[in-house]
Amino acid sequence: MSGPKPGLQLGLKVGRGAHAPAFLVMDVIAAANARAAGIAPGEPGILRMEVGQPGTGAPRGAAEAAARALRDGHPMGYTEAFGLRSLRERISRRYAEHYDTAVPAERIAVTVGASGAFPLAFLAAFDTGDRVAMAAPYYPPYANILTALGMVPQLLPCDASTRFQPTVAMLEALDPRPAGVIVASPCNPAGTMLTPEELGAIARWCHDHGVRLISDEIYHGLSYDMPEATAAAHSPSAIVVNSFSKYFSMTGWRIGWLVLPEDLVRPVERLAQNMFISAPHVAQIAAEAAMDCTEELEANRAAYRRSRDLLLRGLPEAGFDQIAAADGAFYIWADVGHLTNDSPGFCSRMLAEAGIAATPGVDFDPERGARFLRFSYCGPEADMAEAPGRLRRWLQG
Amino acid sequence: MSGPKPGLQLGLKVGRGAHAPAFLVMDVIAAANARAAGIAPGEPGILRMEVGQPGTGAPRGAAEAAARALRDGHPMGYTEAFGLRSLRERISRRYAEHYDTAVPAERIAVTVGASGAFPLAFLAAFDTGDRVAMAAPYYPPYANILTALGMVPQLLPCDASTRFQPTVAMLEALDPRPAGVIVASPCNPAGTMLTPEELGAIARWCHDHGVRLISDEIYHGLSYDMPEATAAAHSPSAIVVNSFSKYFSMTGWRIGWLVLPEDLVRPVERLAQNMFISAPHVAQIAAEAAMDCTEELEANRAAYRRSRDLLLRGLPEAGFDQIAAADGAFYIWADVGHLTNDSPGFCSRMLAEAGIAATPGVDFDPERGARFLRFSYCGPEADMAEAPGRLRRWLQG
Repeated sequence: MSGPKPGLQLGLKVGRGAHAPAFLVMDVIAAANARAAGIAPGEPGILRMEVGQPGTGAPRGAAEAAARALRDGHPMGYTEAFGLRSLRERISRRYAEHYDTAVPAERIAVTVGASGAFPLAFLAAFDTGDRVAMAAPYYPPYANILTALGMVPQLLPCDASTRFQPTVAMLEALDPRPAGVIVASPCNPAGTMLTPEELGAIARWCHDHGVRLISDEIYHGLSYDMPEATAAAHSPSAIVVNSFSKYFSMTGWRIGWLVLPEDLVRPVERLAQNMFISAPHVAQIAAEAAMDCTEELEANRAAYRRSRDLLLRGLPEAGFDQIAAADGAFYIWADVGHLTNDSPGFCSRMLAEAGIAATPGVDFDPERGARFLRFSYCGPEADMAEAPGRLRRWLQG
Repeated sequence: MSGPKPGLQLGLKVGRGAHAPAFLVMDVIAAANARAAGIAPGEPGILRMEVGQPGTGAPRGAAEAAARALRDGHPMGYTEAFGLRSLRERISRRYAEHYDTAVPAERIAVTVGASGAFPLAFLAAFDTGDRVAMAAPYYPPYANILTALGMVPQLLPCDASTRFQPTVAMLEALDPRPAGVIVASPCNPAGTMLTPEELGAIARWCHDHGVRLISDEIYHGLSYDMPEATAAAHSPSAIVVNSFSKYFSMTGWRIGWLVLPEDLVRPVERLAQNMFISAPHVAQIAAEAAMDCTEELEANRAAYRRSRDLLLRGLPEAGFDQIAAADGAFYIWADVGHLTNDSPGFCSRMLAEAGIAATPGVDFDPERGARFLRFSYCGPEADMAEAPGRLRRWLQG
């Protein structure tokens, strides 16, 4: 090797994808980990309200099904690109049972988490330069994946007056019309939902105007008051994204799914054959079993509800009194504009001084995120119960 | 729902990704499955020489490590985007032991198979419209993923005179110069290798000319005569792709890895955070254990070698006497131009009349694939031993 200079000095080009922003919550998690590692025995621990994954782990029946298949020497080769037939049929049954909606297994694609589903959906539905509208605040990878693929996120600034959700009027006002719209109900970070009527109206407007609707339903199963509706019931052209990571509590297993409109079934299958081959086999077996673990999963949900109720009472008393309707998921989106105009600095101080980690809003809303933060309540119930008191003492002490 | 028309009739637009070609080997597999299902008891079975995945399954130690972690209630949450630290360090050790090359764990990214690694590498390194050169024949997803991402595959027609591998002279002759080059050694479908000197020369040429080299080393471990070299030893700007699917025999577990040049570590990490979050956790645990299952893996390789040797003797006697140097992987690329100018039709007849499934070359080389086919010898050894006789009787009978 004739001593070539390193790439950085050589100035080798990098692609536009190289400029995708980091998902800053990762840095918050790292800071909380570092701080937790420095806690002496006997001192109060860090309350982790920054994480977006259930602490509960896969339901017992799911882990057992995976372990059993391994013990039995199940070969674990590639599955079909769209996943095990039995899992696709089980997901189809969930649409019948949970939504009273017929979705044939042929339209269901098992994916590598919801994260793996988005690039497939975007590439199948959109082209370079296409604009795709979404509410702000939003889940950052929507915009980051679109941007990496050469598409253009179009933000619809939303506030408490529409539960931080988009409306048909907002879409109608866009000129030119976007190629697509992403909605999420319940959503991350705001934790708010669209009513079934609102979702239906958006779905119909998109379908009637040739705009591709992508409905992120990854937090379905985790709602507390409002009924859940699937876009699959409202539009034959919508793409639905879902996952086993949240309600089914299987983050690290990396299994999600798409409900595809007829016209995108073969295109997405071809993309998946090339870009994924298949989702992990053993995780598909576990996921199928998870769908029958209702008792354990509903117990998880009941715990989230109790944590949510504690926080909805306790946070306002602590001084966080501008909070979004916590309809679902496990997030509370708090306007802290009366306390700071620098949510990253505010979160750093809160971690250092109150021992509570939360995510500053700038990840989720570049424009207005400096006066918002996200509390996640999927951690241990005892920690959620302790948080309001600590916050009150910190803010008022 | 006010009776909207289905998307197909409405003519909703689809993206360029919707036009990615199918990976035709999937259809061959389906035809072979259908034919195998129609075989009566006692009749000779179908010899499966079309599949690209080991029939051996994960090494015992890998499956046991996964089952043990599940039994112990290991939580299986997301890992860091680049994977478990211990797995990255174990892969780093493999570079020291197998290649005598220092690759720090910081430059290793665990991915969702090699398939999941390619989009990350392409998006980090290239832009819309960039041309990326590769030998033809080639692994179809290279071109299909590039095309889906708006990049342009540039084919370098190769033949037996260069072992179906590209040369520096071919790259030098390209005008304009491509943004990137993909090499694979051993390669799919040809089963041929570059010598370490040839790989080194291509790596140096790319580095010196600001061209990003992507070295697909997914078949490393499965070579039979020639030494294996990694591009990581020859260039600080090259991207290396590898996987646990072939030598480690873990296809359906979906674990691969990238060795990244310094300048792409953070860009790829950001992309992975957005597009994958992490590779499947339980599969990472299994993969780490697989790296210590040397005895079982080397026994697999010895079986491949025996099958290869049988075919290298038997295929010419059967009439397939124009075959590429079978240096590695588990493929034999046969020129059947003296027998047909329609390899798909030829393969269909071979399946129907001789009961042998092989992949027509058109998947791998749109220009010349009609006179080539690919035999895979990763199936049962007894089947590989039986194949030459059946082929001889069919062709000469």
